[in-house]
Amino acid sequence: MAGNTTGKIFRLTSFGESHGPVIGGVVDGCPPGLPLDTALIQQELDRRRPGLSRLASSRQEEDKVELLSGVFEGMTLGSPIAFIIRNTDSRPGDYEQLRDVYRPSHADYTYQVKYGIRDHRGGGRSSARETAVRVAGGSIARVLLNVQHIEVIACTSGIGKLSVDPRNLILRREEIESNALRCPDPFVAAEMEAYLDTIRKEGDSTGSEVFCLIRNLPAGLGEPVFDKFGADLAKAMLSINACNGFDIGSGFRGISMKGSEHNDPFIPTVEGGSGRQDSNISTSSNHAGGVLGGITSGQDVYFRCSFKPVPSISKEQQTSDRLGKPVTLKISGRHDSCIAPRAVAVVEAMACLVTADHLLRQRTIR
Amino acid sequence: MAGNTTGKIFRLTSFGESHGPVIGGVVDGCPPGLPLDTALIQQELDRRRPGLSRLASSRQEEDKVELLSGVFEGMTLGSPIAFIIRNTDSRPGDYEQLRDVYRPSHADYTYQVKYGIRDHRGGGRSSARETAVRVAGGSIARVLLNVQHIEVIACTSGIGKLSVDPRNLILRREEIESNALRCPDPFVAAEMEAYLDTIRKEGDSTGSEVFCLIRNLPAGLGEPVFDKFGADLAKAMLSINACNGFDIGSGFRGISMKGSEHNDPFIPTVEGGSGRQDSNISTSSNHAGGVLGGITSGQDVYFRCSFKPVPSISKEQQTSDRLGKPVTLKISGRHDSCIAPRAVAVVEAMACLVTADHLLRQRTIR
Amino acid sequence: MAGNTTGKIFRLTSFGESHGPVIGGVVDGCPPGLPLDTALIQQELDRRRPGLSRLASSRQEEDKVELLSGVFEGMTLGSPIAFIIRNTDSRPGDYEQLRDVYRPSHADYTYQVKYGIRDHRGGGRSSARETAVRVAGGSIARVLLNVQHIEVIACTSGIGKLSVDPRNLILRREEIESNALRCPDPFVAAEMEAYLDTIRKEGDSTGSEVFCLIRNLPAGLGEPVFDKFGADLAKAMLSINACNGFDIGSGFRGISMKGSEHNDPFIPTVEGGSGRQDSNISTSSNHAGGVLGGITSGQDVYFRCSFKPVPSISKEQQTSDRLGKPVTLKISGRHDSCIAPRAVAVVEAMACLVTADHLLRQRTIR
Amino acid sequence: MAGNTTGKIFRLTSFGESHGPVIGGVVDGCPPGLPLDTALIQQELDRRRPGLSRLASSRQEEDKVELLSGVFEGMTLGSPIAFIIRNTDSRPGDYEQLRDVYRPSHADYTYQVKYGIRDHRGGGRSSARETAVRVAGGSIARVLLNVQHIEVIACTSGIGKLSVDPRNLILRREEIESNALRCPDPFVAAEMEAYLDTIRKEGDSTGSEVFCLIRNLPAGLGEPVFDKFGADLAKAMLSINACNGFDIGSGFRGISMKGSEHNDPFIPTVEGGSGRQDSNISTSSNHAGGVLGGITSGQDVYFRCSFKPVPSISKEQQTSDRLGKPVTLKISGRHDSCIAPRAVAVVEAMACLVTADHLLRQRTIR
Repeated sequence: MAGNTTGKIFRLTSFGESHGPVIGGVVDGCPPGLPLDTALIQQELDRRRPGLSRLASSRQEEDKVELLSGVFEGMTLGSPIAFIIRNTDSRPGDYEQLRDVYRPSHADYTYQVKYGIRDHRGGGRSSARETAVRVAGGSIARVLLNVQHIEVIACTSGIGKLSVDPRNLILRREEIESNALRCPDPFVAAEMEAYLDTIRKEGDSTGSEVFCLIRNLPAGLGEPVFDKFGADLAKAMLSINACNGFDIGSGFRGISMKGSEHNDPFIPTVEGGSGRQDSNISTSSNHAGGVLGGITSGQDVYFRCSFKPVPSISKEQQTSDRLGKPVTLKISGRHDSCIAPRAVAVVEAMACLVTADHLLRQRTIR
Repeated sequence: MAGNTTGKIFRLTSFGESHGPVIGGVVDGCPPGLPLDTALIQQELDRRRPGLSRLASSRQEEDKVELLSGVFEGMTLGSPIAFIIRNTDSRPGDYEQLRDVYRPSHADYTYQVKYGIRDHRGGGRSSARETAVRVAGGSIARVLLNVQHIEVIACTSGIGKLSVDPRNLILRREEIESNALRCPDPFVAAEMEAYLDTIRKEGDSTGSEVFCLIRNLPAGLGEPVFDKFGADLAKAMLSINACNGFDIGSGFRGISMKGSEHNDPFIPTVEGGSGRQDSNISTSSNHAGGVLGGITSGQDVYFRCSFKPVPSISKEQQTSDRLGKPVTLKISGRHDSCIAPRAVAVVEAMACLVTADHLLRQRTIR
Repeated sequence: MAGNTTGKIFRLTSFGESHGPVIGGVVDGCPPGLPLDTALIQQELDRRRPGLSRLASSRQEEDKVELLSGVFEGMTLGSPIAFIIRNTDSRPGDYEQLRDVYRPSHADYTYQVKYGIRDHRGGGRSSARETAVRVAGGSIARVLLNVQHIEVIACTSGIGKLSVDPRNLILRREEIESNALRCPDPFVAAEMEAYLDTIRKEGDSTGSEVFCLIRNLPAGLGEPVFDKFGADLAKAMLSINACNGFDIGSGFRGISMKGSEHNDPFIPTVEGGSGRQDSNISTSSNHAGGVLGGITSGQDVYFRCSFKPVPSISKEQQTSDRLGKPVTLKISGRHDSCIAPRAVAVVEAMACLVTADHLLRQRTIR
Repeated sequence: MAGNTTGKIFRLTSFGESHGPVIGGVVDGCPPGLPLDTALIQQELDRRRPGLSRLASSRQEEDKVELLSGVFEGMTLGSPIAFIIRNTDSRPGDYEQLRDVYRPSHADYTYQVKYGIRDHRGGGRSSARETAVRVAGGSIARVLLNVQHIEVIACTSGIGKLSVDPRNLILRREEIESNALRCPDPFVAAEMEAYLDTIRKEGDSTGSEVFCLIRNLPAGLGEPVFDKFGADLAKAMLSINACNGFDIGSGFRGISMKGSEHNDPFIPTVEGGSGRQDSNISTSSNHAGGVLGGITSGQDVYFRCSFKPVPSISKEQQTSDRLGKPVTLKISGRHDSCIAPRAVAVVEAMACLVTADHLLRQRTIR
């Protein structure tokens, strides 16, 4: 059973190989009557696009989205919203040397074993290009969140040994977008930029971290006991290329804490939270990261994602071909040396998809 | 849309409140012809059971599993396997004081907001008692894994500031089970025990970490692009009560690494891996944690889970009732001061469920 | 991938073999705050129970339902509602002769081929006893329908060559329940009863038909393009033991009609239908059976189900054992000679489950 | 929760409005390594296409399929197979008069109520044009069936009062395709053609029936208790536009039969059926239609589908607009007067999809 669909009610099905004619997706379950047009999707796609700064891959992907269905006179119909993005800059010839070679820490080998066949050109289905589909799908989910003033905002919080703790900052999209690294602290951003320059000159790459915040989320989202809000976020994030870690609230930092420090006391709130009965309660701290028992509490949800170092490095590497013969590999071409700045858009998109799905799921509960 | 079922092919549906007559589950999709009896399930359940040592809660839950269906003359039938565990030690009276009070960092409040009603007795559906159902379900999944010699083994790797790195150890279940903490290093285990004694005397609790290893896993499991093997593990773990973090392979530790250090070179292997064509390849390191592109590589899968400090502490706490009125709360009763030692059984169970599900999913691919 | 769960939002998972300890089910996705108790479920179960008249099997199944979870102080919690029905009257010894023999037109053979193993006692999982679980599940769905005054009512409309067209009658449950055949026309009922007496004396059985009506259904239910309201009803009905035909509205009788006769003209309605904007429209005829494009129109939904003759007859039959050796079989024991009267309760239950599911699905649309 | 995906393992997601830029689909779960190209899909699409004879609508839809993903060097990759068909002959202006009018027995009204918005042009999402996506998807499923020599073949079995019983004929595709009606009996075909000529001159339409046969199906497919093989076929067929009835095996004709006539005795078979152990058994009759207990028996599966009269007739009709105002409607344009001949391709496609899905599901059982 294949796994190219995410979500239960608000669902995105993704398709396409990086060097086939298109990549694309189908959003099913988007409520009718929401304003949607190409420009809105394009805006988010442009944030993921490489080639916008010297920090990112210089591949010129245009990433122009085309809406194929589900929208009529500028409004969603409630029918599936299909879209495609053409692969205009594909140069399959570049990849012929990789037909029988397994790049280290890439999915070449595992795809071959799993399917017995693969499109070796640029990773095919395993290419990070696929995340553009997530960004497009997420931008449609965001339209639903906007109606309820729910805000999803991510930033780069770590590169190599350099890091920033965004829990102490007031995150604003304009500030985050003001530097190429999407780091909310401009001083740390400068240091990160310097570090990336060094790494790039070495022909190397680095691991990184993305932080994400969801604001104005109503209390009550998340489905015990297996589809908890944090659990679905974790799955969504770990499904992003190169993501290998997730924590919510205190997360791994909470291991060394005591219950008396960590517990978030309930306090009355004047405003009344999400407007529901029983939601006139707040907490004076938020180590939980906005979820209790897998259900949102009305506090901010925040989480972190770790990304492994980009496996495509220009340094010479030892590896093996399909027959097990040793190969010395030098990967040419255009590659990011750090994933975080572009992953910010993908993390937001996946968070939007999870949130939209749970908003609709809660409608079936109460 | 509720969320009490996990898995796509090998599925567990969980039911039951901690102070209702029973908790239980239904496993659907277990292949026919596998040997299964009550004793085998009971053995795993006993590992999760509290009251076995002074470290755990002294509540005497018997946790006797009863098989209701799906097994005939000692073999699985291919039909749903239902089981129940009676709640023999329920003392609902203990909980009357909690009918209208929200315990800090518990799910009392969020259940109330989500459903507009809740069983306040011992957390009801949100109680950690529900994890017994996961352990029972996981023990059935393990029968399927045993046929393929796949081994799932977890241990306590961190409590407070004390930790051990199990990647450097050869994990054996007998050794792990030999101390009450299920820590694979006996010296660290002794320190942890001393620390827990202190914490308990303070009426406090602590966060903790569980490490898990899956050995002898064939290459090729995991479904791009959303149901990656690591993504499904992440969701499964984050769905466990109090789990708030997950990483696989280098995870958060990989952020500070370079690609040239982190990449795992492919090397030929003499033995031929899982026996499939194209699986005669190994890697000389395993920073990936056994997954590439979301698909198992045939190397060991290993991951970590963080657990927040147990919220039920005997120290006096400030909180609020349903009307927003401040309440001073002193939680009496029987509670663990650290989750990891018992969570080890739950983490293993969830890993068994995910692995069994993906084994069967791969049968539909190739 | 096994198939023991029905529904997408309001879901019933069924388990149990006819001669194991219990049969039972888990309803997940039932909204919280609905009144539910054992008596309400028992009332429906009693309608399905055999042994109430000389027309039905004389097996004395008590069919006492026990609620295991999901209900607290008489109200649904929003958590899974599990229930069991004990198999008190199981006499497994009766069935030893059937261990290796395939009864004609029973599922003995196909279960053996599919699973390589089967519980041969009374059909095991394939026994019609399993339908008691559907009736219990359906009675929970009906609680949700009651809130919206949706009424589901079925009756026997055909036995052998005797039939009645319930489209011309005003169906009332009291009248239908007033005769053992559940036929809405007492004169036809008497003829049917006489026919069944003859059949029974011959040691034979007969095919039959059940008609079902859903009243007060709001317009707008059903999910294009694959989960149309009629499509989900069709699947639900064909999943009932011995059901081998379904039609909705004019159905097979519409084949010989012309479009100009069959089309249902839209007319304005004074009352305003379901209260939604755009629902102030009715139709002057209802050949469509209350669905257009797979979506309910606000008119009555009605459909028919055909049931094949009961395969268990006391007449001597020729068949084969597992090795292909011819066997002369005489089935003893207690068996209905006609399914319809008891199937009425099962058809209603499945219709309630489908309707509840689509009611909740529509909440995610608009 | 929307319903644009069919299947559990072999899944088709459909998208597109009849007068948007394209209609299309995504097949997920198709095994890798199967030969697939555009020509193969096009061949099936051409069978559904209108305008091939004077019997069908004269709209010239080109229905050229384009493959977007999932195929590499002529073989399926195991990744999603997306395809589109452009709507080249759309003349939206034709439909402006229908913006606020509900055509009798069309889905205009129910779409409006369900979604609060609709694309009124040619039915939008509710148009029969959507079935082209099913035919394309079904042709991909058929590639999988071909590997196992499973044959799916349908024909027109009834138009108005004229009918043929294909159970008495040996169905061959060439013969069926040799007349425009796809009726397997050329004499009845001629009568049907004459009847359709009359109907067409009247500006009217007629109901019809399609018969379908699945040959060489292995025993063991179908998932008790809800996803029985016949149940999934029933749902698939009732999801086709205008289909309002389904029966399998004796179906509605079995109501008047006795058990002693209807039961299919098991007999040994020389050849050994599907090659599995336990499948060396056949039956001497096949009233069951190839399924017992919802599982295929290895005998031919056969079923019938009824289609209501085409609602678009050129005769003048009375109906209502959105405000409930009476309207006299004369539908111009190009419409079939009978669905069956073109529906033959759609019924086959849906049967292929269901069969492919259950073939893969059985791989997870045994």
